Amino acid sequence: MKAEILAALRNKKGYVSGQELCEHLGVSRTAVWKGIQKLKSEGYQIEAVSNKGYCLISSPDVVSAEELKSIRKTVWIGKKIVYYDATDSTNIQAKHLAEEGYPHGTYVVAGRQEAGRGRRGRSWESPEHDGIFMTLLLRPDIRPKEAPMLTLVAAMAVTVAVRTMYQLPAEIKWPNDIVLHGKKICGILTEMSAEIDSIHYVVVGIGINVSNQQFQKSIAPVATSIALEGGRQIYRAELIEAVWEQFEAYYDIFFQTRDVSGIIEAYNSYLVNMDKQVRVLDPKEPFEGIARGINGQGELMVETESGVQLVSSGEVSVRGVYGYV
Amino acid sequence: MKAEILAALRNKKGYVSGQELCEHLGVSRTAVWKGIQKLKSEGYQIEAVSNKGYCLISSPDVVSAEELKSIRKTVWIGKKIVYYDATDSTNIQAKHLAEEGYPHGTYVVAGRQEAGRGRRGRSWESPEHDGIFMTLLLRPDIRPKEAPMLTLVAAMAVTVAVRTMYQLPAEIKWPNDIVLHGKKICGILTEMSAEIDSIHYVVVGIGINVSNQQFQKSIAPVATSIALEGGRQIYRAELIEAVWEQFEAYYDIFFQTRDVSGIIEAYNSYLVNMDKQVRVLDPKEPFEGIARGINGQGELMVETESGVQLVSSGEVSVRGVYGYV
Repeated sequence: MKAEILAALRNKKGYVSGQELCEHLGVSRTAVWKGIQKLKSEGYQIEAVSNKGYCLISSPDVVSAEELKSIRKTVWIGKKIVYYDATDSTNIQAKHLAEEGYPHGTYVVAGRQEAGRGRRGRSWESPEHDGIFMTLLLRPDIRPKEAPMLTLVAAMAVTVAVRTMYQLPAEIKWPNDIVLHGKKICGILTEMSAEIDSIHYVVVGIGINVSNQQFQKSIAPVATSIALEGGRQIYRAELIEAVWEQFEAYYDIFFQTRDVSGIIEAYNSYLVNMDKQVRVLDPKEPFEGIARGINGQGELMVETESGVQLVSSGEVSVRGVYGYV
Repeated sequence: MKAEILAALRNKKGYVSGQELCEHLGVSRTAVWKGIQKLKSEGYQIEAVSNKGYCLISSPDVVSAEELKSIRKTVWIGKKIVYYDATDSTNIQAKHLAEEGYPHGTYVVAGRQEAGRGRRGRSWESPEHDGIFMTLLLRPDIRPKEAPMLTLVAAMAVTVAVRTMYQLPAEIKWPNDIVLHGKKICGILTEMSAEIDSIHYVVVGIGINVSNQQFQKSIAPVATSIALEGGRQIYRAELIEAVWEQFEAYYDIFFQTRDVSGIIEAYNSYLVNMDKQVRVLDPKEPFEGIARGINGQGELMVETESGVQLVSSGEVSVRGVYGYV
């Protein structure tokens, strides 16, 4: 109900009469009034003028399912949205929902994570209200070996959304970090449950540092937030919606060919490592070279003295020779 | 306690005195007596002779954790064994145990499966007492793309165990079926939970038709059991133990190189499709050719008019051009 009222207020410029809301939603004036009061109590500024109706003046920076549903413009992402005030990790919850049969496109969002995780079990700082913690559930008809490329799809989505919304020069640190001015604002953690030849489901977790003003000492040199880098008027729900809109667009391109051949040029234009010296932390034998962008399989092409090495997404880490990126 | 008494009775030829059992197990004579009574009630024939002690005459065909522990000879498989009289599917249970933190080498075994599954969600007939339904939990430090080869490791283990125990000509139908005289006696279902670059865990489910006397009409033409093909005196627990012993041996070889290069020759010698005409049911474009065995990556090499095609484990199905195999 709240989500529908919010959406109705948002969809109409100016005032919406109580009568219109009743008819549109098929409920009583009392129900509408109660919904409006509930929204106000949550921080929505709603003006009520007699003979004119209601007008949404401003929204609080919340990421509730109602808020997200009311601004939803995506086609298939977010038909189901599951919100937690606090949870262990949105990836863990998304995997539970997957086992319970939730559909392709469902996403989980949390106000706070108590056990946020990065790749290989590393922890991810998840302070309340300062960040976006969300995970998309996918049930794609692709092969397990194609799943790593979904990390690249997500990286494109976040990068383009941040650039569009805040005019900030977000860049991709292959394969799964987004950086602003050389420091990390976003990490992506893709996990899958699969048979050998077919995927049960994939979860794509996205953590974004939005309004953090400081970081723990250990990560402070390499971490930053959108706010710290100059982002203004950041409504997390809007950013979430923008990320999913971009995700749908890049996912479509990916899904046509089941590879990232259709986004190579765009991806490489945002690649912070592009044409830079990188160190590939191959567990067998680390090596250095010049990053020359990704190929259609999402592998990083690294030019070394002995030729071009293809680095598989995620098998190794890549570090800039000079500093984090 | 029961498992320890059983093991003690098995490890000694002839009689074991009650006193020996007490000392060996560090418990009272009453406790030993109770354990013996419990075992008898479960179908173990135990002779008790005064002044001599106890002697195990025969064991019932049970697959309880106690029985399996008492005959265990493996090194790391089965340090933990979880038994269910009945369960939905041993793969599902093994995945639950994995999430709960059970260690590498744990295995699940069930008397009966109520929702046994084969690849891609196909059902697997799991009548009580007629079969072996078990799943091994692995936490190998390998890459997701290497996991498919564990199916081949399991196929080798079952094939060699059946051959050794019952002198029956078990053969492998690449990649995940075992056949006797051209009909299926065993299917293997390998599943994994993984990040893009690292495995959380793998479960290897093995279903074996042991003493089935008949099958549902729909699968009767292609299914058989060890008993139907001439196997005698089949104690399921012994076969389970034999499979895991073989699994450990072939897993060691696999793990050294993280591929199946060390078992190519042995595998191909059991390959029912070897040098036969096969039809590769590639979803894009089915084709026919002569199967020439696996390579070190576990791919099936199929010789066609336009050269040798490598068929990745599990991406496609392979059928004999003449009949099931």
